[in-house]
Amino acid sequence: MSDQNRMWKLAARPVGMPKRSDFRLETGTVPPPGPGQVVVRNRYISLDPAMRGWMNDMRSYIPPVPLGEVMRAGAVGEVVASNHPDLRPGDHAVGMFGVQEFAVADGAGVQKVDPKMAPLPLFLSAIGMPGLTAYFGLIDIGNPQPGQTVVVSAASGAVGAIVGQIAKIKGARAVGIAGGPAKCAYVTDALGFDACIDYKNERVGDALSRHCPGGIDVYFDNVGGEILDEALARLARRARVVICGAISQYNATGPVQGPRNYLSLLINNARMEGFVVFNYADRYPEGLAALAGWVAAGRIKSKEDIVEGIETFPETLLKLFTGENFGKLMLAV
Amino acid sequence: MSDQNRMWKLAARPVGMPKRSDFRLETGTVPPPGPGQVVVRNRYISLDPAMRGWMNDMRSYIPPVPLGEVMRAGAVGEVVASNHPDLRPGDHAVGMFGVQEFAVADGAGVQKVDPKMAPLPLFLSAIGMPGLTAYFGLIDIGNPQPGQTVVVSAASGAVGAIVGQIAKIKGARAVGIAGGPAKCAYVTDALGFDACIDYKNERVGDALSRHCPGGIDVYFDNVGGEILDEALARLARRARVVICGAISQYNATGPVQGPRNYLSLLINNARMEGFVVFNYADRYPEGLAALAGWVAAGRIKSKEDIVEGIETFPETLLKLFTGENFGKLMLAV
Repeated sequence: MSDQNRMWKLAARPVGMPKRSDFRLETGTVPPPGPGQVVVRNRYISLDPAMRGWMNDMRSYIPPVPLGEVMRAGAVGEVVASNHPDLRPGDHAVGMFGVQEFAVADGAGVQKVDPKMAPLPLFLSAIGMPGLTAYFGLIDIGNPQPGQTVVVSAASGAVGAIVGQIAKIKGARAVGIAGGPAKCAYVTDALGFDACIDYKNERVGDALSRHCPGGIDVYFDNVGGEILDEALARLARRARVVICGAISQYNATGPVQGPRNYLSLLINNARMEGFVVFNYADRYPEGLAALAGWVAAGRIKSKEDIVEGIETFPETLLKLFTGENFGKLMLAV
Repeated sequence: MSDQNRMWKLAARPVGMPKRSDFRLETGTVPPPGPGQVVVRNRYISLDPAMRGWMNDMRSYIPPVPLGEVMRAGAVGEVVASNHPDLRPGDHAVGMFGVQEFAVADGAGVQKVDPKMAPLPLFLSAIGMPGLTAYFGLIDIGNPQPGQTVVVSAASGAVGAIVGQIAKIKGARAVGIAGGPAKCAYVTDALGFDACIDYKNERVGDALSRHCPGGIDVYFDNVGGEILDEALARLARRARVVICGAISQYNATGPVQGPRNYLSLLINNARMEGFVVFNYADRYPEGLAALAGWVAAGRIKSKEDIVEGIETFPETLLKLFTGENFGKLMLAV
C-alpha cells in the first residue's frame, strides 16, 4: 500500500481538560494486511466522552491507551484491502479503528454494515454504540414500565436522545435535561420528549419536582455531579438509577464528587446500577435490529454533529466537555 | 390501670449528636386498652441507629417522630391487659412500643412471640428486626453465591453479625469490618467469619485488598463514609452493594459524604441498592422461620448489649454512634 496514514497518538496523559500537546499527529505508511486482517479507510471517527477515561492510567473496564499509541476510537470506513474471509474491498465496516485515516484490524470486533440501509454516520450513532448504550442501559437496567417517568441527562446527546425516544416507545414519560433553549426545543419538538429542563437557565431540582410529580422511576445519568444529586432527591419507590457516564467529572483534577443524596436509595428501596455497553456484545444483534427498525420507521431520530478534518481532533474532542456539540459528535475524514 | 408509665418523649430535633435535652422523661398513667387494643409492659427496648433518622423532620420511609411524642422504638414485652382477640394477658409480643414502660397498641404490627423458644432479648436481635434486616438485605439484594466474597461493615453489630453468619451458611466467604481487637476477635472466633478488619488499627483499603484478592462480590454497608468508598474501589464484576445504613453520617451537621468511588459501579457493571426492612413485612414469617432455625441449630450466634434502666436512654443511645456498644444494644426496663 502506498497510502500515507495520518494518526493521532496519545503523547501524554491529560491532567484535567485534554490539550493539543497531549496528542501528536504522526504520518506513516499503511502496511498491507497480515493473515486474516483488513485495512479500512476511516470515513467517520466517533468522538465519545468515554475516550477521556481511556487516556487515564487507571484500572477500568478496558486497558488505558498506551502512551505513543494511536488514540482509541470507534469509526466506520471502507475496506480497502482484506485477507479476511468475510470482508472484501468495497465493504463497509465499523470497529475500534482509532483516530487515524487507515486502520489495520483483524476480524475481532469488526462489524460489516450496509450503507444502503442508512447513511454511514448513523452506524456511529443511533444504529451504533450510542444507540446500543441507550438500548441496553434503558431496557435492561432502567426497565421502564408504561406510564412511568424516565429522566435522562444530556438529553440532546448521542445516548440521551435515544434513551428518551425508546422510553416513549415503551409507553413511559420522558423528561430530558439539556443545556440551553435550542437543545431543549430539539428534545421536545423533534424528539418528542414530554418535557426538557434547561440546566443552564432553570433550577434543575425545582423543574424536576414540577415535571415528575410522582417522582422519578428511572433516572438515566450521563453527567454525575449536582444533577445526579437533584435526581436522587426525587426518586420514586423502587426507582432505578442507570449510571452510564459522568461527563461533569471526567476532567476533574480533584476527587470525584460523590452523590451526597445516595441514601435516597435506602429510603426508597431504589437501585443505582452502572454498566458498560461492551458487556452486552453477545446481544448487539438484538439491539441493532430493534434500533434499525425504529430508525427506519421514523420512531427514532438522530442528529449528528460532524466536524470535517482529522487534524481538528484535539479541539473537536473538547466540544463534548464544554457542551458545544449538538448531537453525536464525529470527525469526517 | 393504676400503673405509672415513664415515657421518653422527643423534646427537640437533635442537631448532630443527640443530647439529653433533646428528650424529656415524663410520667403518666397507663390508660385501659380501647376496643381491639392491648397494653404491653415493655421488658426490653431496642436501640437502633435508624432511630436517629426518625428524629429528623425530613421526608423518609416513615414519618418523623412528632415533637412531644414518645420516642419510637421496637420492644418486646408482656401483655398486661387486652381487648385484642389474639393476645391475652401473660402473652409476650414484639412491636413498635416506644421508649416507655407501658405501651397501648392496636393489633397492627404486634407480633406474639413464644418465650420458651428463645430468651426475650433475641426477639429484638437475631430473631427480630436486625435478623430480618440481615436476612432480606443479604439474601434478596446481596444474593451471595457459594465461593463469593461478602464484606460487611459494623460486623460485630446487631445486623452485621447476622449478615456474615448467613453468608457463611450460604457457602460464601465472610469478611467483617469492626472497631478494635476485641470486636474483631469475636467476629472471627465466635461468629466464624473468615477475616475481620479492625478499622481503628488497620488501613481498611489495604486490608480489603489482602482479604478479597478476587474483589468484593457483595458489600453490605452499615456505615457509609470512607469505608464505603474503600469497598467500592474493590468491587468484583457484577458486585452488589447493599445500602442498609450509614451510621457514620447520621449525626453529620454538614452535607452527607457521598461515595466518591461510585463510578466503580459503571466500570464493574455493579449495583448499589438500598432497602428498608419494613418493605419485606409480608415475608417476615419466612425470614423469622429461617433465623429461628439457624439459632436453634447453633448456626447463628447473637450477642446482646443490655443496659439496665429506662432512665439511661439518652446516654445509652449514644453508644451506637460512638461504637461503644458490643452486640445488639437494648434497654432492660
